[in-house]
Amino acid sequence: MIISMRLHATKEEVANVCDRIKEFGYKVHSIEGEQRVVIGAVGVGDVTPCLESLEAMPGVEKAVRISAPYKFVSREFRSAKTEIEVAGAIIGRDEFVVMAGPCSVESEAQILESAEIVARAGAKLLRGGAFKPRTSPYDFQGLEIEGLKLLDKARRATGLGIITEVMSDRDVELVAEYADILQIGARNMQNFALLKTLGNCGRPVLLKRGMSSTVKELLMSAEYVVAHGNSQVMLCERGIRTFETVTRNTCDIVAVAVLSELTHLPVILDPSHATGKRSLVPALSRAAVAIGADGLLVEMHPAPEKAMSDGAQSLDPKQFAQMMKDLQPHIELWKRARMTQTAAAV
Amino acid sequence: MIISMRLHATKEEVANVCDRIKEFGYKVHSIEGEQRVVIGAVGVGDVTPCLESLEAMPGVEKAVRISAPYKFVSREFRSAKTEIEVAGAIIGRDEFVVMAGPCSVESEAQILESAEIVARAGAKLLRGGAFKPRTSPYDFQGLEIEGLKLLDKARRATGLGIITEVMSDRDVELVAEYADILQIGARNMQNFALLKTLGNCGRPVLLKRGMSSTVKELLMSAEYVVAHGNSQVMLCERGIRTFETVTRNTCDIVAVAVLSELTHLPVILDPSHATGKRSLVPALSRAAVAIGADGLLVEMHPAPEKAMSDGAQSLDPKQFAQMMKDLQPHIELWKRARMTQTAAAV
Amino acid sequence: MIISMRLHATKEEVANVCDRIKEFGYKVHSIEGEQRVVIGAVGVGDVTPCLESLEAMPGVEKAVRISAPYKFVSREFRSAKTEIEVAGAIIGRDEFVVMAGPCSVESEAQILESAEIVARAGAKLLRGGAFKPRTSPYDFQGLEIEGLKLLDKARRATGLGIITEVMSDRDVELVAEYADILQIGARNMQNFALLKTLGNCGRPVLLKRGMSSTVKELLMSAEYVVAHGNSQVMLCERGIRTFETVTRNTCDIVAVAVLSELTHLPVILDPSHATGKRSLVPALSRAAVAIGADGLLVEMHPAPEKAMSDGAQSLDPKQFAQMMKDLQPHIELWKRARMTQTAAAV
Amino acid sequence: MIISMRLHATKEEVANVCDRIKEFGYKVHSIEGEQRVVIGAVGVGDVTPCLESLEAMPGVEKAVRISAPYKFVSREFRSAKTEIEVAGAIIGRDEFVVMAGPCSVESEAQILESAEIVARAGAKLLRGGAFKPRTSPYDFQGLEIEGLKLLDKARRATGLGIITEVMSDRDVELVAEYADILQIGARNMQNFALLKTLGNCGRPVLLKRGMSSTVKELLMSAEYVVAHGNSQVMLCERGIRTFETVTRNTCDIVAVAVLSELTHLPVILDPSHATGKRSLVPALSRAAVAIGADGLLVEMHPAPEKAMSDGAQSLDPKQFAQMMKDLQPHIELWKRARMTQTAAAV
Repeated sequence: MIISMRLHATKEEVANVCDRIKEFGYKVHSIEGEQRVVIGAVGVGDVTPCLESLEAMPGVEKAVRISAPYKFVSREFRSAKTEIEVAGAIIGRDEFVVMAGPCSVESEAQILESAEIVARAGAKLLRGGAFKPRTSPYDFQGLEIEGLKLLDKARRATGLGIITEVMSDRDVELVAEYADILQIGARNMQNFALLKTLGNCGRPVLLKRGMSSTVKELLMSAEYVVAHGNSQVMLCERGIRTFETVTRNTCDIVAVAVLSELTHLPVILDPSHATGKRSLVPALSRAAVAIGADGLLVEMHPAPEKAMSDGAQSLDPKQFAQMMKDLQPHIELWKRARMTQTAAAV
Repeated sequence: MIISMRLHATKEEVANVCDRIKEFGYKVHSIEGEQRVVIGAVGVGDVTPCLESLEAMPGVEKAVRISAPYKFVSREFRSAKTEIEVAGAIIGRDEFVVMAGPCSVESEAQILESAEIVARAGAKLLRGGAFKPRTSPYDFQGLEIEGLKLLDKARRATGLGIITEVMSDRDVELVAEYADILQIGARNMQNFALLKTLGNCGRPVLLKRGMSSTVKELLMSAEYVVAHGNSQVMLCERGIRTFETVTRNTCDIVAVAVLSELTHLPVILDPSHATGKRSLVPALSRAAVAIGADGLLVEMHPAPEKAMSDGAQSLDPKQFAQMMKDLQPHIELWKRARMTQTAAAV
Repeated sequence: MIISMRLHATKEEVANVCDRIKEFGYKVHSIEGEQRVVIGAVGVGDVTPCLESLEAMPGVEKAVRISAPYKFVSREFRSAKTEIEVAGAIIGRDEFVVMAGPCSVESEAQILESAEIVARAGAKLLRGGAFKPRTSPYDFQGLEIEGLKLLDKARRATGLGIITEVMSDRDVELVAEYADILQIGARNMQNFALLKTLGNCGRPVLLKRGMSSTVKELLMSAEYVVAHGNSQVMLCERGIRTFETVTRNTCDIVAVAVLSELTHLPVILDPSHATGKRSLVPALSRAAVAIGADGLLVEMHPAPEKAMSDGAQSLDPKQFAQMMKDLQPHIELWKRARMTQTAAAV
Repeated sequence: MIISMRLHATKEEVANVCDRIKEFGYKVHSIEGEQRVVIGAVGVGDVTPCLESLEAMPGVEKAVRISAPYKFVSREFRSAKTEIEVAGAIIGRDEFVVMAGPCSVESEAQILESAEIVARAGAKLLRGGAFKPRTSPYDFQGLEIEGLKLLDKARRATGLGIITEVMSDRDVELVAEYADILQIGARNMQNFALLKTLGNCGRPVLLKRGMSSTVKELLMSAEYVVAHGNSQVMLCERGIRTFETVTRNTCDIVAVAVLSELTHLPVILDPSHATGKRSLVPALSRAAVAIGADGLLVEMHPAPEKAMSDGAQSLDPKQFAQMMKDLQPHIELWKRARMTQTAAAV
């Protein structure tokens, strides 16, 4: 069960609810968000009597039985898709949203040029790393705060939204000042200290699937963010690690369809990390549209051969523009399907 | 290097070519197909002088340098896509070919009903297992020859082509009598005795990727069949084995795009085994069309809840018909892209 | 349930048993071995009444309830370890048995020299491939029957037993003429046609785990062989395929301990394929002894740098002798533990 | 190349070295530890002239060419094994060190009882989680600071050292106050913000391998800690994620041997997480000793059936004591081998 307390429920009301749950023999786990307390109750047996009793108590907004281990993010809790409004676009509704840009912010010229290119081709957000998770301590670690400021400049120049990665709970506040979406990288999908902090960051979060994480673990990590107070979460499939080495990762494209059965959160696909090879990006992007993803996160660099990271998987400006054009008829089919679904749901 | 001898080249001509290759310091591996001998020469250093010398020799049709470990199946050896004509369709050209039917042939009524359903919805071939590879010796092992005869009846009733699995080199001749395409299952992808026998079976072969085989190993297995005399081979992505258990396998959809860069052989996708779950099949099928596969191999059963195997992943007749209808606009885009490619290649 | 019929039970007795099982509402699957019929009965509900009824019927030797999907090979069916007597050794009892030799039989000199080296160092069986499963059709495929004859010569010269691979059901009879143990390679672990034929080959079988097969699938494959009439089966862990590439495969050493809980069949470890690197073989061999494997299958080549296959993972004669010596104190501890177990079991 | 500056080298000396490196055409990456600056220089071509030039410069302690991407942790940089002195034991020398205790600190009684049990059986350190990384936000997250204080109490009562996990760079200072070894969990192996902070924590670090991390990535993560100033790092193999589900993870035991070729850092094995099943822990522990690990990290709980986490894989007190006793003769062989190696190295 999940018991969602009203905004500003009193401490006493919360305590009473917890006591009642324990009387019914369940274990209580309460999470205090900034504005609202949420109480999880776990146990065995028929929960109906308990639910009925709780719903009648002062301070309780909603009490729901949820069989999946992830609660707030499950379709059981909420059947309508979550919509995330950012940079003039609504992710999760009837618009296929493309976020594009270089792997790293390298210089003012590079990021401004990138922003113009992706805006012109139809992207709605600019991606670009200021804090870079690198396997080697000797690799370029990003421009950090300087990079954030350059992203801000690019936003003002083009009107694009900004998505950029945050790697530590210590930096969440800082990055949230500059970014429209906070990106959590695959290696941090189970950095629980970071996930908890995101509950209170005031920005939408894009949570990348860990390279050996199951779909269910991804949902549990999203549950951390939502349970701690932030429901503006989107998920990102970016390829998992398998024995196959012909591509950088193995794109588990079916996860997009599985997720859309299990959760109401929007799902983005990253064809660049999923393949690691520029020539495969357009084909996978078509497939992502066809299978029903809500958007793409794509690497584009003004001069991929000079990129400080991930050059091999970055499209050049011409390839990116061509891909955006070629995707159009597929996106038209996507829109038609969305409208049919929405109509059916009404 | 690959040296392809002329049809009916004499033993002496072959021996002379082998001697010449050895004089140049390379290792010789010759494969005697029924009609033609093919000689592989492996070694280091510049092969140009050797190639020139060989091409001038009696009995030699063609001598080519190929850097990939797979030779005949590589795009280097042949840039135009292989076309396989079967049951009135041409796989690999400008038609998206659907093969559908139950996992196993169970009875005359079941297979005839299946055939009518899939034919009516637009499939070109009927799938159905007569020899079944089952993990447990106590599971249904298929109707064997009786099953082949029922497939034949279904062909005569509907005009559909037949695709069915062969599991042992001993059965190749028998199955080839009844089938239009011989299917090699994932567990036999590296059954080299079987692959060699297929070189001479007189039927097109659909080779499924092993559940933990790389794309390159799949190509090497196809190379066995082609090098032993049968160039009518198509490949099939059916999901690989990973840590993820929410689906039966993990569909490596990008492999379709990778294969189309590396080989001229057609590529089919099996959305049923790739997902293991009926509700995911239509979404993955759309993605397969969008990424450029040449066709689908789909499980459809007249009454999935009663199926003797793979019921959970089989579409029912209504779902199959709906999917075929919903795929149409995607297939239209697929055709347009094919024609552009063909035009560009000319 | 598994119902094991008496030797030479009549067809009528078998039919009566099958009828009785069906009366109780179970599904029947009968397997006719050369000497004995075995009947599997699968279904739901309490089987006690059915078991009791069956045990009283003419022709029935034993009827047992077994919960695991593998029956004959489970510890439930037989608690005492299977012992396999071969070449003067008893695998599965109180002797740690080493099988060693080159990957491939290459020449008379090579195999005779190998045999002497491994015999001198204390191995009991000589390994050497005559039929070689090779990823590429252009690689050395083995000396085939010529290789078998050379192995036979080596046996007569040294008294070693012979273990060699069979790749096709067609060759089982031939290989069984020359070999003391038939080896089934990882790629053929689910070649069910081959497994069935082994039921009747009259030789012990060493079944290698497929490179992406689970422990339970390995047991199911062993079940094929045993259910078809041959109980002399040993299993072999040789590494599985994972994302890690620093070694050729990833040795799932814990599988040895898991198998010894689940099955009474002996378990051999192959440290050469598991690592792919000579320098790691002695360390892994020590671990195999410590964890309680019944023996080793090791690659040793008189001159690894000239080997036609698997040179990098083959020990040279000196390394092999040193390893055998260094293993001694570990084998002493192994023996002590075995005797304690045997004493405890009595 | 790695250029290690002297303690208290001046900023000017560092700047001069960086300039010199750039003159030679290499890229510079400098890391400022608290006491020492380390400079990495990356590029192509023969580095000898540059090395010679640098070694002569003021402020330079050592300049070394290292071909592996990990520098400080490689055997090239340092051939003698790193020794870590903690709680009266020296990890990495001639003592096999066992760290044991419950998954989580649950109460004063539980942790004090655990400490006594493991001390009595011969363990040198007590493990126990105060900050717990849990897949679900609704699971017990640990007693946090209260847990640290209880661990401290247990240390004072028994003389055991304390090893406990730290999950965020924010908590490093706090945990370092209470722990003798800071443990980094598998999910944080690539939490680079955390790794950098550990460079300056003043405590030895046990770095667990990520569940889908390669051996080389593990070394790169260790390199982060060492390059940022802390050379007291030990590595921990705890099983990787594969397709096999019969055990919780798949123990890559060969990684222990591989690591001991590639690095001078001590290697610990965690048989509890590697198997997930109590009955398999003693067998794997024997194998860990035999293959040459430097110690074990084992879960033991006074009453596993009541444990708040990981009960299924925790030994009970009797099993732990028995295992410690049974390991003795194996540890004797381990010691003999260590002494031989040390003698050979001298």
